[in-house]
Amino acid sequence: MAESNRSDHTSRQLRMLSQALDSGRLGPVRRLINTLSPAEIGHLLESLPPGKREVVWGLVEPEDDGEVLLHVGDEVREALIADMDPDELVAAVEDLDIDDLADLVDDLPEQVTEEILRSMDRENRDRLEQVLSYPEDTAGRLMNPDLVTVRADVTVDVVLRYLRLRGELPEHTDHLYVVSRRRQYLGRVSLAALVTHEPSTPINELIDDEQPAIPVDMDAVQVANLFSDRDWLSAPVVDGNNILLGRITIDDVVDIIREQAEHQAMASAGLDEEEDLFSPVWRAMRRRLLWLTINLGTAFLAASVVGQFQDTIDQLVALAVLMPIVAGMGGNAGTQVLALMVRGIALRQVGMHNVVVLLWKEVRLALLNGVVLGSLLGVVVLLWFGKPMLSLVIGMAMTANMLFAALAGVLIPLTLKRAGFDPALASSIFLTTVTDVLGFFTFLGLATLLLI
Amino acid sequence: MAESNRSDHTSRQLRMLSQALDSGRLGPVRRLINTLSPAEIGHLLESLPPGKREVVWGLVEPEDDGEVLLHVGDEVREALIADMDPDELVAAVEDLDIDDLADLVDDLPEQVTEEILRSMDRENRDRLEQVLSYPEDTAGRLMNPDLVTVRADVTVDVVLRYLRLRGELPEHTDHLYVVSRRRQYLGRVSLAALVTHEPSTPINELIDDEQPAIPVDMDAVQVANLFSDRDWLSAPVVDGNNILLGRITIDDVVDIIREQAEHQAMASAGLDEEEDLFSPVWRAMRRRLLWLTINLGTAFLAASVVGQFQDTIDQLVALAVLMPIVAGMGGNAGTQVLALMVRGIALRQVGMHNVVVLLWKEVRLALLNGVVLGSLLGVVVLLWFGKPMLSLVIGMAMTANMLFAALAGVLIPLTLKRAGFDPALASSIFLTTVTDVLGFFTFLGLATLLLI
Repeated sequence: MAESNRSDHTSRQLRMLSQALDSGRLGPVRRLINTLSPAEIGHLLESLPPGKREVVWGLVEPEDDGEVLLHVGDEVREALIADMDPDELVAAVEDLDIDDLADLVDDLPEQVTEEILRSMDRENRDRLEQVLSYPEDTAGRLMNPDLVTVRADVTVDVVLRYLRLRGELPEHTDHLYVVSRRRQYLGRVSLAALVTHEPSTPINELIDDEQPAIPVDMDAVQVANLFSDRDWLSAPVVDGNNILLGRITIDDVVDIIREQAEHQAMASAGLDEEEDLFSPVWRAMRRRLLWLTINLGTAFLAASVVGQFQDTIDQLVALAVLMPIVAGMGGNAGTQVLALMVRGIALRQVGMHNVVVLLWKEVRLALLNGVVLGSLLGVVVLLWFGKPMLSLVIGMAMTANMLFAALAGVLIPLTLKRAGFDPALASSIFLTTVTDVLGFFTFLGLATLLLI
Repeated sequence: MAESNRSDHTSRQLRMLSQALDSGRLGPVRRLINTLSPAEIGHLLESLPPGKREVVWGLVEPEDDGEVLLHVGDEVREALIADMDPDELVAAVEDLDIDDLADLVDDLPEQVTEEILRSMDRENRDRLEQVLSYPEDTAGRLMNPDLVTVRADVTVDVVLRYLRLRGELPEHTDHLYVVSRRRQYLGRVSLAALVTHEPSTPINELIDDEQPAIPVDMDAVQVANLFSDRDWLSAPVVDGNNILLGRITIDDVVDIIREQAEHQAMASAGLDEEEDLFSPVWRAMRRRLLWLTINLGTAFLAASVVGQFQDTIDQLVALAVLMPIVAGMGGNAGTQVLALMVRGIALRQVGMHNVVVLLWKEVRLALLNGVVLGSLLGVVVLLWFGKPMLSLVIGMAMTANMLFAALAGVLIPLTLKRAGFDPALASSIFLTTVTDVLGFFTFLGLATLLLI
């Protein structure tokens, strides 16, 4: 039963699949796809260039189509949806869970959405509309309204008989929820408690009311933090009147955690985490150009600083050779501080309460690193150019720029955060602007004062 | 019950806590700590500078100490352990689950480990030694040997009676495992199936043998991918003979996913994800200096390229003003490609099977971006310096460096990966070396040919 290989689509398998696609042998491809989960098919589709992607998408079992659409990035999803006709789409998504359907609705053509709403019974339509009424990235959009409730005044035996009558439980059910007549949330009873207690035990005695319910408007990231910090597998969701609305399960939370991590990694390079690896060149171009043009603006700013010192450089061209070292090393040192800060802010470990202590630590660290690296740089420059004063100037400029880098690395992300911006996204542009501008200014300024 | 605030240690709460610590009022601090889970206390400790950290650590209930130690980074853990005497440590960790204890053992003083081993009964000692015999970052180290097994030839009723006799189930139990007399894994039965079927149903009929068991030597990251791609909440772990050894639950997998994401974010700045926000300056310095010194080496390499063109710069000092723009923009464009590639490699979506298609896409994109940005740059330079040939040279150099950046951004992480290195860690150094060296060379080289 230990067929780990079955589920591990290694690069070897991907290469085989790629070759099979090249040669047009679709049988092995279909067999491989049938062993994959919808999320794995989603990864596979994302890893294929457009032509092959369409072929593989055509081979996916229609009943998996909806689930696969849930597991690809926005850009890939749009492309896949654009390939399907309305009937296929309706068939693909109409059997999805309400919370999953809600995730997709925005990407579906209006005609398809209407068709699906028409084909739903009233109860499900109401549920869908309720889920859609909550803002994206809140508990309300994460929750599944499908859950099992019981009353507090019955016994284990009564509940077990009810469950046997009811048959199958909603996916990932680990608790039943105890509610009042008015559906107010009172607590929950684990399946583990049900199976380990005598049939005559009143449900009352088994209620766990320790775990707080999640308010429907809680931010999705905060929900994810609660799940991961408290080792929850599921949690009830209530409205402002403590009425039970649904439950959130850990599998959806894992997706949030992964997306959040991807967002941070991609944002620091000015990219959208939904970007398709193979997005059409024109589309990718528009996105990347915006970021690069902003960077070009800041590069001009730094160049204009150098421009102020043209006379100085004219007299000592070695300055032009060495100045990128001072600016670049400031950028590297600042990026390290930035990485620590962005992580700390995301984990809510950094804030106004400890910024002074942090700043002081980073300043001391920068001075120490600056003196060590500045001295090293000074020695190398002395050996290279044989000018002691030049060596002194570059050593001092380096130490100073390390200090600026530390200050910028600590203060820029905190300031952006306070101003309501995403520190992961914009910090690096501001940081390199500071380290370039001040690096050039300090080095060339000191040179003008001491060398010329 | 919707006391979300109780569990959300916002920065406001952290500020209050920080103030309470400053004023020495420990009552409110203790009350706040008692509402937090061990993981949340861990986050809190990580966010406090050393002095306050020790005070708060002293206020944590001794029975939570072990769990808290599990939830802090290596560096903070070492510091906390150094503050405890052996008796405290033994008391803190002896009640941990075997898999958690195994995580800590390497960080404990030898004396404490011996004491703990002595205080354990034989069965637990054997289990701990078994878990420790698997390499770190494998399924064997993630699994918990504590699970409930049943036989296939009994009925639901028999199992329920057995469970009632047994009492409490191991934490996060959602399945019972069906094994043969020789403890070979046959499949699993969900608690949900137990409570929804008639007591007379044979366990045989309820066995789910669809989910493959995890081999004990599977890599932890691969385990995490399986859980998240297949929406598993738990999975059995078996050895090469299909003997059931333990089970892995999703809460441990969530920790792996978070650590992996943190590793990627920190590695790209040359940092260790275990780094303490407040690590002692000397310690942080040693770590960061290594990275910065390597970067200094590559900066010298780039400077030496500029050094070859001193005569050219001497004749046209505007080149010195403009050259950082060409090099820097190559770095920015390359970083974007790198971010996409590192994500793709981590998700196993990028490999030899699609590198050619990817490279071709990125090359076209780079040429388009290069022409647009090169033209923009050319116009600005023409307005600034009034030299059409200079404007042409910088436009051409920019386009060329965008191309080099795309090639480097695609090929460097793949090459590092193939050579067995971590692409997240070392890619950025190589990339900026390429874009600096080739950016300076192309710009100053073209200038020498066409302008001087």
